[in-house]
Amino acid sequence: MTLNSLLLNAKDVATVVERIGRDSVMDGLIDRLTRTIRGLHSQKFQAPERAGFSYEEPEWGLLEWMPAYFQNDGTTVKLVGYHPGNPEARNLPSVLSTICVFDTSSGGLKGLVDGTLLTALRTGAASAVASRVLGHPDSTTLGIFGCGAQSVTQAQALSRVFPIERILAYDIDPHTAATASERLSFIGRPVELFSTAERERMLERCDILCTCTSAEPGTGPVLPEFDPRDHLHINAVGSDFAEKLEVPVDLLRKSLVCPDFRGQAMVEGECQQLSEEEIGPDFCELLENEERYHSHRSSLTVFDSTGWAVEDHVAASFILELARECGVGQDVSLDNIAPDPKDPYSMLGNPTAASPASGSRVAVVTTS
Amino acid sequence: MTLNSLLLNAKDVATVVERIGRDSVMDGLIDRLTRTIRGLHSQKFQAPERAGFSYEEPEWGLLEWMPAYFQNDGTTVKLVGYHPGNPEARNLPSVLSTICVFDTSSGGLKGLVDGTLLTALRTGAASAVASRVLGHPDSTTLGIFGCGAQSVTQAQALSRVFPIERILAYDIDPHTAATASERLSFIGRPVELFSTAERERMLERCDILCTCTSAEPGTGPVLPEFDPRDHLHINAVGSDFAEKLEVPVDLLRKSLVCPDFRGQAMVEGECQQLSEEEIGPDFCELLENEERYHSHRSSLTVFDSTGWAVEDHVAASFILELARECGVGQDVSLDNIAPDPKDPYSMLGNPTAASPASGSRVAVVTTS
Repeated sequence: MTLNSLLLNAKDVATVVERIGRDSVMDGLIDRLTRTIRGLHSQKFQAPERAGFSYEEPEWGLLEWMPAYFQNDGTTVKLVGYHPGNPEARNLPSVLSTICVFDTSSGGLKGLVDGTLLTALRTGAASAVASRVLGHPDSTTLGIFGCGAQSVTQAQALSRVFPIERILAYDIDPHTAATASERLSFIGRPVELFSTAERERMLERCDILCTCTSAEPGTGPVLPEFDPRDHLHINAVGSDFAEKLEVPVDLLRKSLVCPDFRGQAMVEGECQQLSEEEIGPDFCELLENEERYHSHRSSLTVFDSTGWAVEDHVAASFILELARECGVGQDVSLDNIAPDPKDPYSMLGNPTAASPASGSRVAVVTTS
Repeated sequence: MTLNSLLLNAKDVATVVERIGRDSVMDGLIDRLTRTIRGLHSQKFQAPERAGFSYEEPEWGLLEWMPAYFQNDGTTVKLVGYHPGNPEARNLPSVLSTICVFDTSSGGLKGLVDGTLLTALRTGAASAVASRVLGHPDSTTLGIFGCGAQSVTQAQALSRVFPIERILAYDIDPHTAATASERLSFIGRPVELFSTAERERMLERCDILCTCTSAEPGTGPVLPEFDPRDHLHINAVGSDFAEKLEVPVDLLRKSLVCPDFRGQAMVEGECQQLSEEEIGPDFCELLENEERYHSHRSSLTVFDSTGWAVEDHVAASFILELARECGVGQDVSLDNIAPDPKDPYSMLGNPTAASPASGSRVAVVTTS
């Protein structure tokens, strides 16, 4: 048996998305993520809290692993680095990631995918999935608070599942704000930009709000006090580290707060600000018993999105399938099989550099 | 900045080893591993116990991650699967692994290496490094108990650092025993095979013994009672799972037992059989204060080798360097860099499949 491993670098992922279509990929991912989470109760799965290295030397950084095992659907480990010095020191993104997908039966590597675009796609899709349960179905006004990379797929994903007519956008950085409309233009909705002085007015108009900022830990929550619409649903995407907070605790306490993954959200998400009893249903419970939560569509709700390994698994498996259909990517077959599994050298030719006396001194004596 | 990631599949690793020479690679690895472990106190590093998924469905298997961070030398995560049903069900090895090496400063992926041959190489090298401290320098008779894949590099590595004149070999499986001489022939030492009835006599002749069996957990220890030479040094390689044991506890208690990694060895290694006070210095202590332990060269010693992420890191980094010198492997540049780090879609061309009304409905309204 040969194990075929498909490698998709960032350009390959972009090519697949371009060929299939940005919206078709997003729609497919929203659908796949919904069905996977709904079906989790029917198979064994394990997805522990992410863990990793946090270090100060040679410079401040994180390298984390996010593993997810599924009885029927493969096993995925996402390896993700966060190195905030990258943009200035190396002209590299601060977040770099690689997603490894394994066959659960054999442990063979099925695919390796660059995680940059996939992370944005799955985070957008997750907000759409949660918002479809908790957001008001007639939501027409979408707010985007923080206009970096994650905002693009948030705005896209929400526009795919709600009758969004306008996007209201704010960023603290003037350049990021000024270029936001261009990044969001493909969504086909008018974008209104707001200044810092105007941002409360913006927040008060939103039916759905996505917060996707990258504030320093300890400086938040970044949202100012404002008077929300009765049915406001917030997707809080930016909180993914201890003391990195976006939503004021008063607003959280008035809302049904649903974490993607309870244990992780209590350490890294908005749920840091809440006691256990103040936290609502998690992603699994929300989708398994969807009707139970529809009454919350007319009141305040928050999806506390810290990023869940299950989402990475679904996104990577989906893009690998699409890539195989499109014939994109390199077949790298990392796990080539040796002719004699008992001889680690059996893939080499005849030995050419053994010990000096090789050959002449070999004598096999059997005493048994 | 472009990140160049080098991918080495199993055939690439074999090609590098063939070009450089099996013994030159082993010698280099023994040297590199010695220097790295000796120098660990001078830099920050973290190498937690391996963790992973253990599951019964769809069939019994393990998928584990073995991470190691180094302040100055990169960060490595080995992903390793153990699926004992592979040989029969799929004609695949039971152990498959992939080693990912990252740049610690940026988190960028530097290399991906198939781990099969590397695991055998580093396990052999580790035994040589430990044996050089603890084994009798005049050791001429090497015992190999269990003649599968790991035995090949054990016998090779020990023959590189001791004046080995003969290899005594035993395996419970007649076919594995019968083919052992062929696998070991490149080492250039006579191989004497022993039957089950003769194995105590074999064990009693050894100066150094490597146990590398794969007995079922709960059925060991696999070594019979025997009367060892006064200075016998054992490299116990096969114990790497709860209740998987090779060395009888009486023999352990008469020996200085040195684990590669204390926390892991107490859970998975021979040290499971000992209390904390009965365990000797670990690999770091052994190499940092080598002279302190030379007196043990004339008495009983055991190196409890469970497999340490530091060894995988050294082996993968070394083979990646050699591969670059040889021009072997694929440059896969997994982390291609998008033109606009704030736009996850910026590696795509112009949008071609946006929402139906794309373009005509785009209107940018700035209110700030």
